Amino acid sequence: MKCVRCGKEASIKVLAPLCNECFIISYENRVEKVIKKFRLIDKNDKVLVAVSGGKDSLSCALVLSKLRDKLNFEMEILTMDVNTYCFSNKIKEFVEDFSKRINVKFNFISFKDYFGFNKKLEDWIKERKIKRPVCSVCGMLKRYAINKFARENGFNKIATGHCANDIARFFIKNLIGKNLEYISKLKPIVYSEHPKQVTRIRPLYECLEFENLNYVKLNNLNPISSCSFYMMKDRFYRIISLIEEKDRKFLIEFVRGLEELNFETRKEKIFECRICGEPTNKEVCSVCKLLNKK
Amino acid sequence: MKCVRCGKEASIKVLAPLCNECFIISYENRVEKVIKKFRLIDKNDKVLVAVSGGKDSLSCALVLSKLRDKLNFEMEILTMDVNTYCFSNKIKEFVEDFSKRINVKFNFISFKDYFGFNKKLEDWIKERKIKRPVCSVCGMLKRYAINKFARENGFNKIATGHCANDIARFFIKNLIGKNLEYISKLKPIVYSEHPKQVTRIRPLYECLEFENLNYVKLNNLNPISSCSFYMMKDRFYRIISLIEEKDRKFLIEFVRGLEELNFETRKEKIFECRICGEPTNKEVCSVCKLLNKK
Repeated sequence: MKCVRCGKEASIKVLAPLCNECFIISYENRVEKVIKKFRLIDKNDKVLVAVSGGKDSLSCALVLSKLRDKLNFEMEILTMDVNTYCFSNKIKEFVEDFSKRINVKFNFISFKDYFGFNKKLEDWIKERKIKRPVCSVCGMLKRYAINKFARENGFNKIATGHCANDIARFFIKNLIGKNLEYISKLKPIVYSEHPKQVTRIRPLYECLEFENLNYVKLNNLNPISSCSFYMMKDRFYRIISLIEEKDRKFLIEFVRGLEELNFETRKEKIFECRICGEPTNKEVCSVCKLLNKK
Repeated sequence: MKCVRCGKEASIKVLAPLCNECFIISYENRVEKVIKKFRLIDKNDKVLVAVSGGKDSLSCALVLSKLRDKLNFEMEILTMDVNTYCFSNKIKEFVEDFSKRINVKFNFISFKDYFGFNKKLEDWIKERKIKRPVCSVCGMLKRYAINKFARENGFNKIATGHCANDIARFFIKNLIGKNLEYISKLKPIVYSEHPKQVTRIRPLYECLEFENLNYVKLNNLNPISSCSFYMMKDRFYRIISLIEEKDRKFLIEFVRGLEELNFETRKEKIFECRICGEPTNKEVCSVCKLLNKK
């Protein structure tokens, strides 16, 4: 197999066979095209990139750092100590080093300080007999914290490493769960619907996990996986991984289809939570409910 | 594994482990529920069931024949000689025998008479240098012929054996192909939009190919597959089969999600074809265009 761009021996095939050097160029071009096509980033935007240390968020931060001069925007990184057994200080050090390497300001917050936990999240959940899985609680707290941090620190966009695998997985999971409201937000950009809500962007919308892993490795990074343990158990994750393995192009084409699909949903109203003032579609937000604040 | 209904040894597991007898009951119950939930059939409806002799259409006709007295509707069967190398007179004889067995009137038409072909469809397509695959041309002609036959013979519903695998496959294929108009019609019932168009129903919407095969076999029928040769090549077919194999429940849950999803599409207008008078969304219908009628 020859690289379709330069004719050298190819090493990676997704949409077409490419050598390592051309894969990097083609990957970055694809991300740039998505950014431009969906106007994810405007001139002078201040983008906060949430980095867990895994392959996807590292890829996201790395490719954005390469594009920031060309597209003329500011960016910073935020890492969170999510207060689970998955998290270790190694992750913090790793992302801090990485941020220095790509010359991006590193920010760090801890769920302990943010939400006042006095023990690990897993134990806290067990003690309170909360039925939700740890991953789901952790995700909810992460979204809350990152939105609050971004807004309070003057960012107008939040970038996450969600990729084609995630989008396809969220789609089937929420289609089956009939969370149609959620499905309609599976787009490369989710615009703010309230002054306290920061617009979210997904620059890796059309990239595969497989590509993200290759991209960081070819950039001499060894990602630290911070929560794959739970994810591996998810039947939707297994189905998507199976498809990715058998037909690499498929997931990219699938999410490109989703980009154009618009659903009839009732527009939900966003209020400020009666307790903490953060944006929510209920009277009291899910985080205050979880923390049992009254 | 024990049958969840009767406690005997289970032999089939999809949503729950079942023995052969209970599988048949549960399968028929599921079809009946779909018919009632989406009002696929009303009292005194006259339903034409398109039967190719394959497992899906046989299942559809068989289960409807068992429900016709209870739900009080009339039904007949239509088989078509599609004039391809796939078709043989054995299929006609087989479906005719099957129709007698279940006491349903058998109707038979031939593409040769209907469209005036003087050679096999494959050769006709090659000769005319038509770029469309045989399956696609055959499907188009089938839809045209069955709608015309149904209308001219007083049927107000057309039932097809499309099952969860087909619906999921059509969904991903047309999502990727960005035929959004088509996706919005992937429902258990597709209402007529023109007096010349007969309403189509899909009673097996929530059933798997795997279940249809078991259902006909347990009813001592050996389906004749009339066109699996082409289908096997389709990458979407392969992906869906892979999913069906790994997670049987998944496809059923997936189509149940699709039942509730509504898309924003522009409503297409249905006219009568300037040449043949059949319903179409263009000035000249695809069949007349294909047959080069002027």
